[in-house]
Amino acid sequence: MYFFVNDYNSIGYPQILDALKDAINEKNPGYGDDPHSENARKLIKKALGNEKVDIYFLPGGTGANIIGAAAGMRQQDSILSANTGHIEGHEAGSIEATGLKIELIDTEDGKLTRESIENFHKKFTTEYMTVPKKVYISNTTEVGTLYKKKELEEIYAYCKANDLYLFIDGARMAAALASERSDYDLKDLTKLCDIFYLGGTKAGLLFGEALVVVNDELKKDLNNLIKQKGTMLAKGFISGIMWETVFKDSDFYLKGSKKAYQMAKILADGLDKKTYDLAYPFESNQIFVLLDEKTLEKWQKIAKFEITGEKNGKKIIRLVTTFRTTEDEVKNFLNEI
Amino acid sequence: MYFFVNDYNSIGYPQILDALKDAINEKNPGYGDDPHSENARKLIKKALGNEKVDIYFLPGGTGANIIGAAAGMRQQDSILSANTGHIEGHEAGSIEATGLKIELIDTEDGKLTRESIENFHKKFTTEYMTVPKKVYISNTTEVGTLYKKKELEEIYAYCKANDLYLFIDGARMAAALASERSDYDLKDLTKLCDIFYLGGTKAGLLFGEALVVVNDELKKDLNNLIKQKGTMLAKGFISGIMWETVFKDSDFYLKGSKKAYQMAKILADGLDKKTYDLAYPFESNQIFVLLDEKTLEKWQKIAKFEITGEKNGKKIIRLVTTFRTTEDEVKNFLNEI
Amino acid sequence: MYFFVNDYNSIGYPQILDALKDAINEKNPGYGDDPHSENARKLIKKALGNEKVDIYFLPGGTGANIIGAAAGMRQQDSILSANTGHIEGHEAGSIEATGLKIELIDTEDGKLTRESIENFHKKFTTEYMTVPKKVYISNTTEVGTLYKKKELEEIYAYCKANDLYLFIDGARMAAALASERSDYDLKDLTKLCDIFYLGGTKAGLLFGEALVVVNDELKKDLNNLIKQKGTMLAKGFISGIMWETVFKDSDFYLKGSKKAYQMAKILADGLDKKTYDLAYPFESNQIFVLLDEKTLEKWQKIAKFEITGEKNGKKIIRLVTTFRTTEDEVKNFLNEI
Amino acid sequence: MYFFVNDYNSIGYPQILDALKDAINEKNPGYGDDPHSENARKLIKKALGNEKVDIYFLPGGTGANIIGAAAGMRQQDSILSANTGHIEGHEAGSIEATGLKIELIDTEDGKLTRESIENFHKKFTTEYMTVPKKVYISNTTEVGTLYKKKELEEIYAYCKANDLYLFIDGARMAAALASERSDYDLKDLTKLCDIFYLGGTKAGLLFGEALVVVNDELKKDLNNLIKQKGTMLAKGFISGIMWETVFKDSDFYLKGSKKAYQMAKILADGLDKKTYDLAYPFESNQIFVLLDEKTLEKWQKIAKFEITGEKNGKKIIRLVTTFRTTEDEVKNFLNEI
Repeated sequence: MYFFVNDYNSIGYPQILDALKDAINEKNPGYGDDPHSENARKLIKKALGNEKVDIYFLPGGTGANIIGAAAGMRQQDSILSANTGHIEGHEAGSIEATGLKIELIDTEDGKLTRESIENFHKKFTTEYMTVPKKVYISNTTEVGTLYKKKELEEIYAYCKANDLYLFIDGARMAAALASERSDYDLKDLTKLCDIFYLGGTKAGLLFGEALVVVNDELKKDLNNLIKQKGTMLAKGFISGIMWETVFKDSDFYLKGSKKAYQMAKILADGLDKKTYDLAYPFESNQIFVLLDEKTLEKWQKIAKFEITGEKNGKKIIRLVTTFRTTEDEVKNFLNEI
Repeated sequence: MYFFVNDYNSIGYPQILDALKDAINEKNPGYGDDPHSENARKLIKKALGNEKVDIYFLPGGTGANIIGAAAGMRQQDSILSANTGHIEGHEAGSIEATGLKIELIDTEDGKLTRESIENFHKKFTTEYMTVPKKVYISNTTEVGTLYKKKELEEIYAYCKANDLYLFIDGARMAAALASERSDYDLKDLTKLCDIFYLGGTKAGLLFGEALVVVNDELKKDLNNLIKQKGTMLAKGFISGIMWETVFKDSDFYLKGSKKAYQMAKILADGLDKKTYDLAYPFESNQIFVLLDEKTLEKWQKIAKFEITGEKNGKKIIRLVTTFRTTEDEVKNFLNEI
Repeated sequence: MYFFVNDYNSIGYPQILDALKDAINEKNPGYGDDPHSENARKLIKKALGNEKVDIYFLPGGTGANIIGAAAGMRQQDSILSANTGHIEGHEAGSIEATGLKIELIDTEDGKLTRESIENFHKKFTTEYMTVPKKVYISNTTEVGTLYKKKELEEIYAYCKANDLYLFIDGARMAAALASERSDYDLKDLTKLCDIFYLGGTKAGLLFGEALVVVNDELKKDLNNLIKQKGTMLAKGFISGIMWETVFKDSDFYLKGSKKAYQMAKILADGLDKKTYDLAYPFESNQIFVLLDEKTLEKWQKIAKFEITGEKNGKKIIRLVTTFRTTEDEVKNFLNEI
Repeated sequence: MYFFVNDYNSIGYPQILDALKDAINEKNPGYGDDPHSENARKLIKKALGNEKVDIYFLPGGTGANIIGAAAGMRQQDSILSANTGHIEGHEAGSIEATGLKIELIDTEDGKLTRESIENFHKKFTTEYMTVPKKVYISNTTEVGTLYKKKELEEIYAYCKANDLYLFIDGARMAAALASERSDYDLKDLTKLCDIFYLGGTKAGLLFGEALVVVNDELKKDLNNLIKQKGTMLAKGFISGIMWETVFKDSDFYLKGSKKAYQMAKILADGLDKKTYDLAYPFESNQIFVLLDEKTLEKWQKIAKFEITGEKNGKKIIRLVTTFRTTEDEVKNFLNEI
């Protein structure tokens, strides 16, 4: 049975377990105030090429989105998001549970643009409406697409000029940076938004995301917010050890995601040759294929994957590759379908 | 330097890392829907002697308290807690952030009683006040004290007769069960409250708490709440593997806490012989000592610990033992002071 | 200048001021616990033909929607609403501010149907999503349309069979009951939903809505919720006096709305004769007309009204009649355009 | 039966009803955007001697406290309040329902001081705690006491120096200004805090409070917050007419409260002569008397009042005078007890 269900199905890099074992006898202060976390933050700052950011290690994506969304917000403020945004349909109302409304912008490809933001934003003119204060985008998006550098620059310029914060959900930022379509790298990120995170759960760690705060206004008292939302681990040093491991050299952080991308590329090429239609352009390790009912049934007999929607009378299914996907798996799967 | 700062300063049992290593090549479904989590839930139910409970693995204590507090609550409902309760002063307003008010009952020893609850509860008679709907207690308490079985039975009887849920914060439940003062064990817990958790972070796991839901009313749709609050790990199978490991036999879950208790006992006996005064009775692995300024300074030169308050012109300091504390450490410390 | 801006532009019935003057020397208990409120509740129950409902007088529509939405909800629960719902776009995030997510169903005419609810509801199958627990509809709707009795019966039957509460926003319920298209009256309402309100602000009172709670599950402790949300007036007896006045005989409650409907009918007929297109079918005192840019400019010189949107390259404008609109006004306006 | 229950038991000044009657045929824009509201704001600014403040008319005290508390707050922020604060015990958890924690400072007389604030505030040093961001005081307090000008100046100076907003709950500000113990007047208020309100409900209006925003940081987008919390009346012009009436000359606003104070003074003098003990010093129109059980029963036969607590084995009862209390009533009551 081929396994293309998601990108968080294995424990992670064995190097991380080794690093934890090495530290098994240590006694460390709690809550991230330990040498490993300190070092990990230093390594990430270096990889980002920016010493001035604040970095926090959070246990998971929903929590990271809660913090990223809630930071710096007053009660009348709202968040602009694509209608496909993870915070809208896949986190059980987590943002609204903090009191904040998400205002939705329709998209075809999971991406916002400067223009779509502007057209939507200018409607918020009365006291009957919320006050848009933050834009949420995800990269890669929930449908596997990827922002180009210019697109991010334009969006961020609009945000800065219009009293909006820009928050990038980076649960799949490693997948974005690992894609051959990406025209930016780690060193660019802190110039492109106010706050973002580097995903760990989907990039070889046991768990966790590294939240990076660029804008000074959002830094203040953020640790209190992180504690309040239950997103501060008592044994923060475990996060520290994991992030140290993957950022000892920053190539290692992206290594698994690059492997995953290569596997996805082979898969996408193979599907293309066999004339399958994709629901969204292939740009990263998530591939969305349109299948008729009969083909779907056939595929389900040999592989595991998610059905994510419908389009033009066909089902949309999602194939996800990871650093554990092998070339043999992909080729054999292509042969069998 | 002796280290008595807290009970979450080391990574945890090496057996857990071994179990993770054994599973390094597995591909598992996400969100706790995997064989390890399934097995861990089965093992814990067996240890609790109750097949009917629902069990969820959450990443940490604050999150577990958020879920335990918010489950089953309407917006006008409130939670009764001791003024020493962890949710009141140590979690940055996490409960209020979900919209719920904590109503505080004064205590001397960190414990509520049937009587103190009843006297407080009966004041809530008008629409100007919240509707008390849940009682929160912690065991062991924040000041190291322990509930007796009869005390818990009386509290729970009052709750059941008065439309109140009883929630036990069990971040230190292992310490409670490991104490020689405890007159109940794992098999009693599901008869004593509606919802509680077994601490993992402070009992040898890398992280995590096992939330146990006894009352059917609180079970419904709880997974949606857990997702909403950011307390659902994508790689739930890692929690599953950890809890499997410590509950393969249930003695193992308590093993480290029993060791910690024995070390605390030696420490408490030694302090008693040296005629130090304790701020609260010695009942578990947290010992609170009253120190004058001069003694405090002396101790700070040889050991690390927290100052938690003041009483009668003296400082209250907290000494915590763990499964990593050795008899030599305790005895040498006693010799040096 | 003709005035068709809204239905809350005048103080209200002079009879209400007279009734207040009559009571100017009285001393009454606060918070609705007074003889006037008691009597008003009795009169409304009689008019509704149901003695078992609970009735609360709230100061305004947004507050009434907050209470209607929040009543009986747990934190993981959500509210289904038409995308045109007043709570979605016109109340500045008031529902989300209580922590609840609104899940939106697309509509063409502002109305939900049993079918549209069912098709949407059945998608909520996973823990990543909220738990739909209540359906919100408004009658008349935000686009002036009206539910038929059979439509409400079908919706309510679906709700009851599927663990959903049905809440009707009745800010314009008097307009609905006053419409000649309505096939139900006050005596039917408590059979058609779990909770609703009778609008007062838009039906001749100085302010206020009468919340009617039918379902016993929603009645419990509701006064505490009303106090909590700031929707309980200290001088509740003023509300009592106003509602007493309009329900001394229940025809009086609808009198102004019936007048408004007649004026709207003349207006709609006149527009029809002049071959204007409406954006939504004419069913109540709100008429939505499609105007090209040139006609719009002409109209704006002689009348005040709101522009509410765009459709097919034309602007949608809203004309609202009230009990103060005169036949002369309508006819003269029709002559001038 | 003498009536000393509260200060919101009568409809209000007949002049207000007259003013409403005069405007019965007007058509006004909604939501406070009308000439009456505009004029009322102008008159109040003049009375306050400050043109730069923003003024909003809200329907009641709980709502005004919600807005005053929530304005400008981030999610990790908290509000410091006296343990006697109205927002703590008498509003059913309204502040927590917006997600904010109230941190309580113990008081004997209902008043905070610069010293009590400072001593409490300096404990907030860690991420486990909320971030104090606002101080809430009420004037007069819930126990009838009154701040002196110097006390307010000291508190506000501390707030400004320590990144805290100062919010004064002025539900009884008219009672404070009307007291002979007050050493400040309307013209001083905007120099003494960041945001406050002038009570209307307890000062002769049918309902409503005038929120005054001094600090620019709190002004921004406040109308959206007011709408969100359900505290914006559609017929805002009714509030406008009422506030216009009482501020045509600013003496009129305080006239009723001055009468109430004079009645309270006669009452307090009489009680003093009869050697009754007060629970708190007499400073305004609320008098708190200590009664033994037997005297209490006797009083209850001839008068209506609230029992508010216990002290030294006696009950505390509250006698409140209003602008409708007559000298005969007070003297006869004193004769009868």
